[in-house]
Amino acid sequence: MKKYVVAIDIGGTNTELAIVDEMGLIIDGKNFNTQSVSSFEDYISELSLEISNILIKNNMTDEVFKVGIGAPNANFYSGCIEHAPNLKWKGVLPISKMLSEKINLPVVLTNDANAAAIGEFSFGEAANLKDFFLVTIGTGLGSGFFVNNELVYGHDGFAGELGHVIVDCKSDRLCGCGRYGCLETFVSSSGVVKTAVQLLEKSEVPSLLRKISPTELTSLDIATAAEAGDKIALEVFDFTAKILGFALANTVAITSPQAIIISGGLAKSGDLLMVPLKEHFENFLLPLFKNKVDVKYSSLLEKNTGMLGAAALAFNN
Amino acid sequence: MKKYVVAIDIGGTNTELAIVDEMGLIIDGKNFNTQSVSSFEDYISELSLEISNILIKNNMTDEVFKVGIGAPNANFYSGCIEHAPNLKWKGVLPISKMLSEKINLPVVLTNDANAAAIGEFSFGEAANLKDFFLVTIGTGLGSGFFVNNELVYGHDGFAGELGHVIVDCKSDRLCGCGRYGCLETFVSSSGVVKTAVQLLEKSEVPSLLRKISPTELTSLDIATAAEAGDKIALEVFDFTAKILGFALANTVAITSPQAIIISGGLAKSGDLLMVPLKEHFENFLLPLFKNKVDVKYSSLLEKNTGMLGAAALAFNN
Repeated sequence: MKKYVVAIDIGGTNTELAIVDEMGLIIDGKNFNTQSVSSFEDYISELSLEISNILIKNNMTDEVFKVGIGAPNANFYSGCIEHAPNLKWKGVLPISKMLSEKINLPVVLTNDANAAAIGEFSFGEAANLKDFFLVTIGTGLGSGFFVNNELVYGHDGFAGELGHVIVDCKSDRLCGCGRYGCLETFVSSSGVVKTAVQLLEKSEVPSLLRKISPTELTSLDIATAAEAGDKIALEVFDFTAKILGFALANTVAITSPQAIIISGGLAKSGDLLMVPLKEHFENFLLPLFKNKVDVKYSSLLEKNTGMLGAAALAFNN
Repeated sequence: MKKYVVAIDIGGTNTELAIVDEMGLIIDGKNFNTQSVSSFEDYISELSLEISNILIKNNMTDEVFKVGIGAPNANFYSGCIEHAPNLKWKGVLPISKMLSEKINLPVVLTNDANAAAIGEFSFGEAANLKDFFLVTIGTGLGSGFFVNNELVYGHDGFAGELGHVIVDCKSDRLCGCGRYGCLETFVSSSGVVKTAVQLLEKSEVPSLLRKISPTELTSLDIATAAEAGDKIALEVFDFTAKILGFALANTVAITSPQAIIISGGLAKSGDLLMVPLKEHFENFLLPLFKNKVDVKYSSLLEKNTGMLGAAALAFNN
């Protein structure tokens, strides 16, 4: 009986693929540079070749029955990646159809944050949770919602755009979507850097961050400075946590989840983010929801939750 | 075969009950003053008596198999009304259990806005919609969300509190929930009056509304003045529509519904609210969702959507 899938996580920089079993165990994995080829057709050829290679290497060509993919701006319903700002190929890319024709296996697709939510539901912190949502904070801010044990795709497949909830109508922070004041302009690696630059400009408090040029400052520099007790860096985390706590509390009023799981690069900030986040979140909550909603980091931070979710998607669809 | 239910809509002022068939047809109805009795035990006795009377009058005592209730702050999971600010009985009221014991019929319960959403899904504008939400605007602002053809209760039964999404962190509008700047402090009959009073204070533009004492001004006065072309009254509607459009657009980014249905007293304002609402809503939407989401009034405005929803709840649970 065929009981393995190939799971693929497509990012702007890296493409990771692996053979995965139904317990989420990775049999073997590989990754390659998403940008290494020029056309999308060439990318599909490269991806097909890598899939063949890993199957042959593990002598599992006849054991795999499906492929699951998590990718930016991917649509579960259409099987297409649609206008992804973080990929170099523009427009609507019918990836499921193209890959399926090449490798002769069925392909299912969803967006990267949804895949991560499915990963948590299947193998992580959200196993046994009926209602939760996941927020993944890295280059941008993505999210995936589970309601009544099902991922919320919405009528068009684009539900879960928490990063594009406007948290400040009057903000001058321009978002990639063309609007101002979206959550991800504050809560993302670049959002955190913007906050630091603004705080440094506004105050004269000494800071380790002043040694770094504003154009070279990274969220990692800010985390390192905060760990060393730097006042400005700590203020950056508090401000970021406040805006995130506000947005999460507002979202709880809509779906009333049992837990919110934080994932992605910024989740590696540990207590620097989590301690002020929990405090602000509870402060902003409607009394009805106070002390009821668990906010926590993914237990899969060191693994690729999105890839595990793509595997679970393949097993379940 | 028993194929009727008793549906009950409990409001702060009125309690409506009716015998309803599975097509949503009301066989006979009755209403009485919710406040006419002092204790909650007496209210249950009164409600039981009215149910008996209407069943006997219609010779249908043996035809009804269940009771469905929509009530403020009611919890589907617990069968209790919990801390309802608009009812005179405080604390946790185990209404399903108490009523069921009196009338010897199973009782199902949900909150009034959820009941209205179920009514729209079963008999109204949302029939055949898999993903939508309903917003009911009256004394307060309630909401009910459908995702994948199911009402979203959340893990504790309290999902759909859109009225308590904070739309302005810096607002001085105190909400009944104890926080400031909730959507319902702007978008509700009292919210509209507050906006009018503030606009009248801030400007010297002549207005029909200046003839009415601020403490006696109602949302109906403002609608009447707006119909007559009153500048301030029109500005009140535009401001209200802008805040509502902002909150709805943010909510779309989470659940990506096919439609948003507006119900309740303020929905009777017709184009005064709907024309600016559609404009502001589209302006605030993430480009991905523009021109995709239908905002419209309930087609059941002249009926009691909540009561019809309570009937559908009884048929389906």
